[in-house]
Amino acid sequence: MQSFREIVAQFEQKIIATDLFPQQPANLYNPCRYLLSLGGKRVRPAVCLMANELFGDIREETWHAAIAIELFHNFTLIHDDIMDKAPLRRGFATIHAKYGLTAGILGGDAMSIYAYQALSKVDTNFKQVLEVFNTTAIQVCDGQQMDMDFEQRNDVKSEEYIEMISLKTSVLLAASMKIGALIANAPQDQCDKLYAFGKNLGIAFQLQDDYLDAFGKSDKLGKQKGGDIIANKKTYLHLQAVNAASKSQMTEIEQWLDSEEDEAKVPAMLALFEATEADKKCRAAVEYYSNLAFKNLTEIAASEDKKQHLMSLAKDLLYREQ
Amino acid sequence: MQSFREIVAQFEQKIIATDLFPQQPANLYNPCRYLLSLGGKRVRPAVCLMANELFGDIREETWHAAIAIELFHNFTLIHDDIMDKAPLRRGFATIHAKYGLTAGILGGDAMSIYAYQALSKVDTNFKQVLEVFNTTAIQVCDGQQMDMDFEQRNDVKSEEYIEMISLKTSVLLAASMKIGALIANAPQDQCDKLYAFGKNLGIAFQLQDDYLDAFGKSDKLGKQKGGDIIANKKTYLHLQAVNAASKSQMTEIEQWLDSEEDEAKVPAMLALFEATEADKKCRAAVEYYSNLAFKNLTEIAASEDKKQHLMSLAKDLLYREQ
Repeated sequence: MQSFREIVAQFEQKIIATDLFPQQPANLYNPCRYLLSLGGKRVRPAVCLMANELFGDIREETWHAAIAIELFHNFTLIHDDIMDKAPLRRGFATIHAKYGLTAGILGGDAMSIYAYQALSKVDTNFKQVLEVFNTTAIQVCDGQQMDMDFEQRNDVKSEEYIEMISLKTSVLLAASMKIGALIANAPQDQCDKLYAFGKNLGIAFQLQDDYLDAFGKSDKLGKQKGGDIIANKKTYLHLQAVNAASKSQMTEIEQWLDSEEDEAKVPAMLALFEATEADKKCRAAVEYYSNLAFKNLTEIAASEDKKQHLMSLAKDLLYREQ
Repeated sequence: MQSFREIVAQFEQKIIATDLFPQQPANLYNPCRYLLSLGGKRVRPAVCLMANELFGDIREETWHAAIAIELFHNFTLIHDDIMDKAPLRRGFATIHAKYGLTAGILGGDAMSIYAYQALSKVDTNFKQVLEVFNTTAIQVCDGQQMDMDFEQRNDVKSEEYIEMISLKTSVLLAASMKIGALIANAPQDQCDKLYAFGKNLGIAFQLQDDYLDAFGKSDKLGKQKGGDIIANKKTYLHLQAVNAASKSQMTEIEQWLDSEEDEAKVPAMLALFEATEADKKCRAAVEYYSNLAFKNLTEIAASEDKKQHLMSLAKDLLYREQ
């Protein structure tokens, strides 16, 4: 059994060794190569491979599935960055910012098709793998649309928010694990438990992300401290604050939403999050979904020894401080 | 055996009967429904079904493949229209013009994934069908990139132009036929001949399109007469004119490229196309690829009776006057 780090190191070797894209047309594929070279945590392909390893040696086809998942994820990042008008990704210029809108749209499109091409190299349980992949891909689009819709709405409920982050981010983590298990020919109930583990872990991770963006100790990786507050993002913290706010607190929140005095806005909103106990509710929600995830992992019929690396990864993701 | 019209009528019924997209999120799927409701010729799904029928009754799975092909085609139209900044498609507002950039990007993305989902309902020779589909999808992206690149270049060769239109439009027509034949379990050489037929037909059709945009008799479907000339498009006619132009003709062409006097520009460029015999060369190229296509069709081992509908369709596409 290999640790997350070991698997990621191997994965990096594989995607360097594999000529993922042709040289021509260069204006199409150079941007794709650029984005992939910026790295990223590679959590999704890694958990796909780790899920395979719970039930047997990593198969060659699982590497292809892992590449497919990473390509799909990067495709969604490219297009999301256009929709979000984001100038930076992983601390570097986004594709559309660096190469233009056409490169962003078409580069993303090509990357999604290359994802399907890589996935097509799977043989074991291929139709089921493809179904999981398709369903997940559609959910990710639905989640992105919900996220866009929420920007225009003032009545988002926290259940809807959980649904949105679940679709936009958690199901891909869940599907990555399920696909790894499917290729390893694991029993159906084990595949489903891994899916549940990934989904709950993903939700907990995203809620933790919301919390750390506001209350985290450092601002690594070019991320702006309180960036969500400055961008008026309707995070879980924000929704909980609005939900519990007194009339005067609500007035205050609304005033800050209209304000562009970022330096005053961030500490003021943090104080409001604390006064409304939104911070505590967010931490409680992180704990709730973390506990579900750890329970799912406990129920998976593999030796503790084999499960330890997934457990360590989950703890690293959930107990980080920034 | 059914005619093109009969097949298209049935296809329209199928895509109405099939709930292709869910109701929610409405901002994602309403634009997709809108575009599909605008119609279009449905040539690609129709030839997929007609290719199946050459070798046996149309199978249920071929309908799914036909839907996949039409969805994929519409996905590329949505994204191409963004890249081309096109306000109109089929005489109506394009998705990005009507619903905004996010709807265009994400609607296209979702449509491409639904295409894969529909294709996944194929069983017969599925892996081969998927490979043809993936390869073609990548070629379509490559072709679109070449088209974008050509806009910035002044040294495009006519062979490169043929390569570009072949990738951007012909291979999908070719693949549609091959997929229909593959699902009908036709022999490999027959599948390949249908592919060649579709590819040559597609090239001839596109060259004819270039010709008719300049010299066609009417301007149906909201298309602007001489639209390619006004947009300075490097069509086959344009490339041939540049290739054969004398020094003074070249000066004239360059002056018109810089001109925005559309009313004078169109007849002047038409005169230059005739003076350089670009019109004759374009018609000769149409004939060359048409002849190749008809030869391919002759070589297909199905009864003349069965082939007649594909023959009629090809003639309708190639001998149209607008």
